Amino acid sequence: MPAKLKTAIVGATGYSGLELARLLLRHPHLETPLMLRRTEGGDESPHNGFANNGSINLAEIFPVLSGNGGYPIQPFSWAALQQQNVELLFLATPHDTSRALVPEAIAQGIRVIDLSGAWRLKQAQHRAVYGFQDTDSLTAAELTEKAVYGLPELNCDRIPNATLVANPGCYATSVILALAPLLSAEVVDRERGIISDSKSGVSGAGKEPTSRTHFVSVADNFSAYSVFSHRHVGEIIEQLKLDANQFIFTPHLLPIPRGILSTVYVYLNREMKPAEVEACFRDFYHGKRWVRVFATPQLPQIQFSLHTNYCDLGFCLAEDGRRLVLVSCVDNLLKGAAGQAVQNMNLMYGWNEEEGLQ
Amino acid sequence: MPAKLKTAIVGATGYSGLELARLLLRHPHLETPLMLRRTEGGDESPHNGFANNGSINLAEIFPVLSGNGGYPIQPFSWAALQQQNVELLFLATPHDTSRALVPEAIAQGIRVIDLSGAWRLKQAQHRAVYGFQDTDSLTAAELTEKAVYGLPELNCDRIPNATLVANPGCYATSVILALAPLLSAEVVDRERGIISDSKSGVSGAGKEPTSRTHFVSVADNFSAYSVFSHRHVGEIIEQLKLDANQFIFTPHLLPIPRGILSTVYVYLNREMKPAEVEACFRDFYHGKRWVRVFATPQLPQIQFSLHTNYCDLGFCLAEDGRRLVLVSCVDNLLKGAAGQAVQNMNLMYGWNEEEGLQ
Amino acid sequence: MPAKLKTAIVGATGYSGLELARLLLRHPHLETPLMLRRTEGGDESPHNGFANNGSINLAEIFPVLSGNGGYPIQPFSWAALQQQNVELLFLATPHDTSRALVPEAIAQGIRVIDLSGAWRLKQAQHRAVYGFQDTDSLTAAELTEKAVYGLPELNCDRIPNATLVANPGCYATSVILALAPLLSAEVVDRERGIISDSKSGVSGAGKEPTSRTHFVSVADNFSAYSVFSHRHVGEIIEQLKLDANQFIFTPHLLPIPRGILSTVYVYLNREMKPAEVEACFRDFYHGKRWVRVFATPQLPQIQFSLHTNYCDLGFCLAEDGRRLVLVSCVDNLLKGAAGQAVQNMNLMYGWNEEEGLQ
Amino acid sequence: MPAKLKTAIVGATGYSGLELARLLLRHPHLETPLMLRRTEGGDESPHNGFANNGSINLAEIFPVLSGNGGYPIQPFSWAALQQQNVELLFLATPHDTSRALVPEAIAQGIRVIDLSGAWRLKQAQHRAVYGFQDTDSLTAAELTEKAVYGLPELNCDRIPNATLVANPGCYATSVILALAPLLSAEVVDRERGIISDSKSGVSGAGKEPTSRTHFVSVADNFSAYSVFSHRHVGEIIEQLKLDANQFIFTPHLLPIPRGILSTVYVYLNREMKPAEVEACFRDFYHGKRWVRVFATPQLPQIQFSLHTNYCDLGFCLAEDGRRLVLVSCVDNLLKGAAGQAVQNMNLMYGWNEEEGLQ
Repeated sequence: MPAKLKTAIVGATGYSGLELARLLLRHPHLETPLMLRRTEGGDESPHNGFANNGSINLAEIFPVLSGNGGYPIQPFSWAALQQQNVELLFLATPHDTSRALVPEAIAQGIRVIDLSGAWRLKQAQHRAVYGFQDTDSLTAAELTEKAVYGLPELNCDRIPNATLVANPGCYATSVILALAPLLSAEVVDRERGIISDSKSGVSGAGKEPTSRTHFVSVADNFSAYSVFSHRHVGEIIEQLKLDANQFIFTPHLLPIPRGILSTVYVYLNREMKPAEVEACFRDFYHGKRWVRVFATPQLPQIQFSLHTNYCDLGFCLAEDGRRLVLVSCVDNLLKGAAGQAVQNMNLMYGWNEEEGLQ
Repeated sequence: MPAKLKTAIVGATGYSGLELARLLLRHPHLETPLMLRRTEGGDESPHNGFANNGSINLAEIFPVLSGNGGYPIQPFSWAALQQQNVELLFLATPHDTSRALVPEAIAQGIRVIDLSGAWRLKQAQHRAVYGFQDTDSLTAAELTEKAVYGLPELNCDRIPNATLVANPGCYATSVILALAPLLSAEVVDRERGIISDSKSGVSGAGKEPTSRTHFVSVADNFSAYSVFSHRHVGEIIEQLKLDANQFIFTPHLLPIPRGILSTVYVYLNREMKPAEVEACFRDFYHGKRWVRVFATPQLPQIQFSLHTNYCDLGFCLAEDGRRLVLVSCVDNLLKGAAGQAVQNMNLMYGWNEEEGLQ
Repeated sequence: MPAKLKTAIVGATGYSGLELARLLLRHPHLETPLMLRRTEGGDESPHNGFANNGSINLAEIFPVLSGNGGYPIQPFSWAALQQQNVELLFLATPHDTSRALVPEAIAQGIRVIDLSGAWRLKQAQHRAVYGFQDTDSLTAAELTEKAVYGLPELNCDRIPNATLVANPGCYATSVILALAPLLSAEVVDRERGIISDSKSGVSGAGKEPTSRTHFVSVADNFSAYSVFSHRHVGEIIEQLKLDANQFIFTPHLLPIPRGILSTVYVYLNREMKPAEVEACFRDFYHGKRWVRVFATPQLPQIQFSLHTNYCDLGFCLAEDGRRLVLVSCVDNLLKGAAGQAVQNMNLMYGWNEEEGLQ
Repeated sequence: MPAKLKTAIVGATGYSGLELARLLLRHPHLETPLMLRRTEGGDESPHNGFANNGSINLAEIFPVLSGNGGYPIQPFSWAALQQQNVELLFLATPHDTSRALVPEAIAQGIRVIDLSGAWRLKQAQHRAVYGFQDTDSLTAAELTEKAVYGLPELNCDRIPNATLVANPGCYATSVILALAPLLSAEVVDRERGIISDSKSGVSGAGKEPTSRTHFVSVADNFSAYSVFSHRHVGEIIEQLKLDANQFIFTPHLLPIPRGILSTVYVYLNREMKPAEVEACFRDFYHGKRWVRVFATPQLPQIQFSLHTNYCDLGFCLAEDGRRLVLVSCVDNLLKGAAGQAVQNMNLMYGWNEEEGLQ
């Protein structure tokens, strides 16, 4: 029986981080993960109400975890990682923190799965929205090249050997998986434009309390935001090789804690029948454990994929056989973040893709 | 001082009907409206739990109204209408009931504002979704011609003299008002298609308890439904003179009690600047009391128009000056139903358009 | 026709303040109220995102108000009050601000209705929870004596001539109005204890974003807080002359934006019949416009009183005729705050108690 | 390695039944459970929209389960049970169905865990609320005696050998576990009365769509119901040996899908310190895997126990050392139903109490 893998996670106190910690804690091939926290500029916010040094307990922040003896989170240090012989590091940190930590981790021979947007983008103009400089450092430029975009259904050939996996954004996951089969089959009339009208629960906005995440602002409400300027647009365009002027992405805030539904609009370049469209999806995702293709006319709903690692896909084709509406759902904290990170780890270590995710 | 108008309402026990009753009860130019109920096949459902004849009290069904001595609802009869010299009849009834009552009302010289879909559609293929036969009767065909689509911002010239006003659908109101200015200015590239991705609160689905309106089905959820088949598509196409194959309408169910937000996508046929687009909206709705145009980049949210009769409009234009996202919000029970009905009445009787709606 | 009253409001940018501004703006006996804001330590919070001086527009903070030309809010100054000859000042400010402003206002001959907890308590041990010193100043001690607790149903004799009205707390309103009739009739077995298990929507916690008011913390959740230590306990005990050791008050946070329901438990000192209990309530509140007594077995629900100034009261008596459960509902922003303030103003100026509140 | 247990479940199409099916499907000591459905008067409701005979698929009713090949549900028959050698039968059926099925199952030597209220009550006056006749049959009377109330923390000595386990009600679980330690320690002043003010999510009201479970009725609302008449009162009184006249139970409906919080009020018969109260709880539940005692002053919240099998207990003691507020939370579908049923099965077959529940 092989030794269990030694992992660490930085940023378990955020929403994605908590989900990730819970998944890692019960994964059959892992040692209990080392949990770490940045003490400045990192994953800590004053509203969490704990002091800036010393060990804290994850169960104090999320009492749902209490009753099992506790989950200590130590201040981050490279020494702690070395002492535990950590082989794989998960970062559930802001992108600036990831940008700062990854070069050193890679230099020390530690593989990294980064849940932030720090390493997802190859093109400078897309990285600009994060404020990264192209001239950050030679290392940063090299790592940007080296990083593998961790969408297992598209990149399962490159993830196993990756040193640095850039875990996709939650919205991007829902949109890319909806569009990839049709674009791959070259049946989309790209000239007429592609639109993703996406809707997310509030945990996607992070744990920081703001007037925008105040209960009274969100409940009984619904709103669009960041139209034409959301950070996930770059990922979608790069991964799907879209023309920026032929794509529109509109995110909206749903009055629910978690879940994403993207309604994606494409025009087909030839008349198709519903069965052909369905076959296109089924063929593309044949053997993919974490994508469920719904038989038309049934459509996914957010509830169906909540608390699972599934991306659910369905569609509705107009009578003219040209206008096509795709519906894609993911749990933003699982397939859209922590679950996908575990799926990537499973690929990186040659384990079954569903290990630790059922 | 002129005598007050005598009105009646059938169907005050539904969600739109209740809002309408509340508006009529406090309207300064009206006598206390006569409230009536259909005792078979009409606005009554067994779940309301009241007997099928005799007078009931609206405050028993909606206790929010209690404490004022009561609002009796009598069984419907033409005799009751005649006895009270009712001049204007509001129907907040299912479309079949409206289809059955309107010809006789018109024949008796009573003007009608109908909140159902019974008289909104001129074209037979659109009426088909309601199951109406073209050969219903000569009267029905004549009334269909005669009916005025009661969207005051577009039809303020014909509503004042209308005998029968077909009050628009809630979704249709939000979509038509968003698109009318740009289509009127002929700046839309219709060939590339127009898409409305619309989201509604649950009161839009009516008061009948179903597995779809069960709290547990709706809460923490979000879903698309009736893609390419919603009844409001016909209204939108007819009013805006769209080509059916160049329009997509996708309704979704929001986990909130009321409110509609439509995200509408159009491509412009020439490059425009945001200020031009804003001017197009401001010019079109100049002097219109119940439309608010938001200055870009601010966008309407559902909360802003709740419990008001406003249609709120905003937009976001891409840097290329071609891709345009419109956001339109209404309270589905007010501007989307009862409020618009009162606005229509104000026009029909020459009153200020805001009377009874502030 | 008498001149209209000149009023001012400080703190319109909070939830209660907004409701109050809306009520005052449409009250028939008032001039447009002067709206003021404290620029330090007052009603401003950094999250509102506006600069610390100069005039702002209430419609920018609450876009629901837009479309009417704007509602300017000036920085607070005594000069502004004098210039406008303000006769009545509403304070929707934190209690420290109210504590600071009221003595000067009274000295200038301006009457005050204060919505904070600053002047509600006569007994030093109750004031202690607010951190007030008994020796604040002679003026403060005098004003504390002079202040009238503004619960119109109990103090309608003293409010008309009051100089300073301390508007009751939202929870306190619901609890006191539920208990007053039975205590007044001396049918309560005080020895066995009185318990109020109260539940409030999130607007009661204020507009400041905190981890506690974050949507993800509140949605799908329910929790008790401040058990035995909530600030409203003192008001309830003082107004009802309860023994502190024979009363328990437990507030809870509901996942809704607004509304309070208090379930109040008392034991009767003699066996009673439901009709007697109902008569006790009806007699006590005879002629009181803003209390609705429900006929047993119907009980109030939060929805019934939302967006109204009613306090709804109902009860359920056990078969033994001794164990009594009272249910009391108010909208925390109306009867629990702004609506009650307007009701107090109506009494202070001899107007009909329902003026501006229908 | 011992053979796996053969089980069956009737009623997997309800909310508790679905949770139970999911737990049984992944329990390590079980064969895939046989899923059965009653075709008349049983667990089927017309709103589920499936035909009354033939096999259906659980994943069609709950699409969250799709993607795994399907979970067929057969029409109920004793032959099916015999053919599969079912040893343990779970009933997630209405109490009438349970009342009808259990005698025959027991006669055939099949052990039963019944999630309904059919067999929980020993005293005829409590059973009366279910409409059961004392003279049902000799068998029913015998089975009533024989049935073990399946609250593992209290009855772990009798459950292992039980033939028929009556799984407790969800509310009853939360209330009994909160009160048992203090009553057992005889520190409660029973004469002053015990009150449980309990609040439940909507799944507790079942899957049948009614006007009461309509989203618009529940959202933004909160209400008390069945005061002094809820069916769970009998269980609580019997299990805790309370005097019916010294207990009040008030259920309320929360606008959330699942979760229960009970706020329980007791007076102590001697002055105690918080540490003593906490010790009383810790001692009583020492070694109990599925009860978490919170250290004062932290209190449980509904979110903390959602999707777990925990009953969370906390308390707050007044300064006088006499007035005590207990807070108890369970997930009504897990510890309040399906999870507790699995916990009972674990005890009946000598397995670890946490098997299949982590």
